[in-house]
Amino acid sequence: MVKSGAGATSIYTSVHEGLDRLEDRLRALPDLGNPFLGELMGHVFDTSGKRVRPAITLLSAGFHPHDAPTIETMATAVELIHIATLIHDDTVDESDVRRGRATVGSLWGGKAAVLVGDYMFAASATFVCDTGNVRVIRRFSETIMELSSGELQEMAGAYHPDQTREQYLTRIYNKTASLFTTAGESGAILSGAPESSVDALRDYAYNIGMAFQIVDDILDFDASEEEVGKPVGNDLSRGILTLPSIIAMERYPDDNPICDLFNSPEDPTHLAGAVDLIQGSSAIEESYACAEEYCGRATAALESMPSNPSRSSLEELARYVIDRRG
Amino acid sequence: MVKSGAGATSIYTSVHEGLDRLEDRLRALPDLGNPFLGELMGHVFDTSGKRVRPAITLLSAGFHPHDAPTIETMATAVELIHIATLIHDDTVDESDVRRGRATVGSLWGGKAAVLVGDYMFAASATFVCDTGNVRVIRRFSETIMELSSGELQEMAGAYHPDQTREQYLTRIYNKTASLFTTAGESGAILSGAPESSVDALRDYAYNIGMAFQIVDDILDFDASEEEVGKPVGNDLSRGILTLPSIIAMERYPDDNPICDLFNSPEDPTHLAGAVDLIQGSSAIEESYACAEEYCGRATAALESMPSNPSRSSLEELARYVIDRRG
Repeated sequence: MVKSGAGATSIYTSVHEGLDRLEDRLRALPDLGNPFLGELMGHVFDTSGKRVRPAITLLSAGFHPHDAPTIETMATAVELIHIATLIHDDTVDESDVRRGRATVGSLWGGKAAVLVGDYMFAASATFVCDTGNVRVIRRFSETIMELSSGELQEMAGAYHPDQTREQYLTRIYNKTASLFTTAGESGAILSGAPESSVDALRDYAYNIGMAFQIVDDILDFDASEEEVGKPVGNDLSRGILTLPSIIAMERYPDDNPICDLFNSPEDPTHLAGAVDLIQGSSAIEESYACAEEYCGRATAALESMPSNPSRSSLEELARYVIDRRG
Repeated sequence: MVKSGAGATSIYTSVHEGLDRLEDRLRALPDLGNPFLGELMGHVFDTSGKRVRPAITLLSAGFHPHDAPTIETMATAVELIHIATLIHDDTVDESDVRRGRATVGSLWGGKAAVLVGDYMFAASATFVCDTGNVRVIRRFSETIMELSSGELQEMAGAYHPDQTREQYLTRIYNKTASLFTTAGESGAILSGAPESSVDALRDYAYNIGMAFQIVDDILDFDASEEEVGKPVGNDLSRGILTLPSIIAMERYPDDNPICDLFNSPEDPTHLAGAVDLIQGSSAIEESYACAEEYCGRATAALESMPSNPSRSSLEELARYVIDRRG
């Protein structure tokens, strides 16, 4: 049922049953007697994703004996919050297509999209409540704060050419790595792992999340529209600087096509010039080096954990994060 | 600090210190090092409301010895979720003004409004987590699901003339009375009240919430634009049937100005005709009778509770809900 990305299949071997049950849980979400809500949710769940985040929750629980339904409940919450975030992001960005399917906003309007996103935020919170673990519940709500803060940082920084790597790293922690961190940490906590293991798995998940977003930002320049489903340079065209473009700005601090683009975003020649600059420089290569560094730290964090299928899958996930093309 | 509505002042006598501390807690919300977020929140909290819902939480805790900070934490969560809902509602309705002030969406755009609303949803959840009570946390997340479901029901029903009173009552439970119910129930639970008192205070708050929304819907026809800050017949102009218009539809089932309006919403003469029909019929009076019935049930629910300042305030609130003009 899970449409895992190419090369990612074996990562899911040890958790595919849990992920199948997660799909069932998503589809069993109550529509509260509201057929319109049911229709919206059916559409959203048909747009199936890679389920990387809930896989991390399931795998992080795989080092200690645990109650599988509790972990799957948490994994469902993690995926739901991710889906809710995507729905709101697509709405605020007025995106018409996500993973090849029409977005809720393009089909039913922004109002329905905001509300179904809210509904899924809330549904995810009820799943987390079902774990009965107040520490996990609290961490989860902090994560939603960080997610929205990250998106607001991105919005506030749009078309500002003077952004540092540090600001970028804070922003991608909030918008992406925060939820990855919670995915790993909660799986460990709910499996009753000792604090040292919780720390290791949190550390792993944080670093994977950072690498994942950096690679996403690289693919915006380095992959084709067919691979990622978005036009090349999509972030830059919306005024968003990411690691490759920040590196290019550092390299050519004065007067460059990115500044030209931010000064006159309507002129299409500036976007093409900016994309050429980034593709022709070493910015892509340097960004990959940065992502690989995070993945190296993720793998190193697992060294204290016993060798077992979960650890192998997490290590493989670290390789997949770098190698993926979409 | 709290701008209580006219006639509502004495309701707050026994809880005004708690409500002042609630304002302080709202203003102390972290901006996560994001000045843009801080600016948005400052604007939102300057648009102060009546704080009816958190007052119910504080008053519902007033029958048993309790930890005041825990109750105030819960009351803060209740108000935050209300504010988050208003922000999203204003955004999806593209409203420019709320309580005489420009909305976030009109000043910073819909994107910022969706995200700051999400942030406040999440912040409210962290406050609820701080109570450490999983029953309350769970009830709270169910409430957010009901809130968004109620708004979606309203949206799905827009411009449909064939709506029953039952559908209306389900919808206003979800969009309004659910949060009132949680406000009362959580105050009671967190004060360690026995289940019989929790039931009584939940019952009170549910009925007050239903009456509150019915009066809101009456004032849409029966109050001036100065009193409620919205043009007369605003709901109807957006295709939304409420109790007065449903009663008018029952009275004149065939061919009436409401049907005409829903068939051609752009024609301003139809709105005026529909408003005239409702104002000239007994629909307003009958709707008030329905609201009074709910308030009567609310007051009756308090009969089992001891007489004390909290009970007096809750009884006074029941009168205020009917008498208010805005």
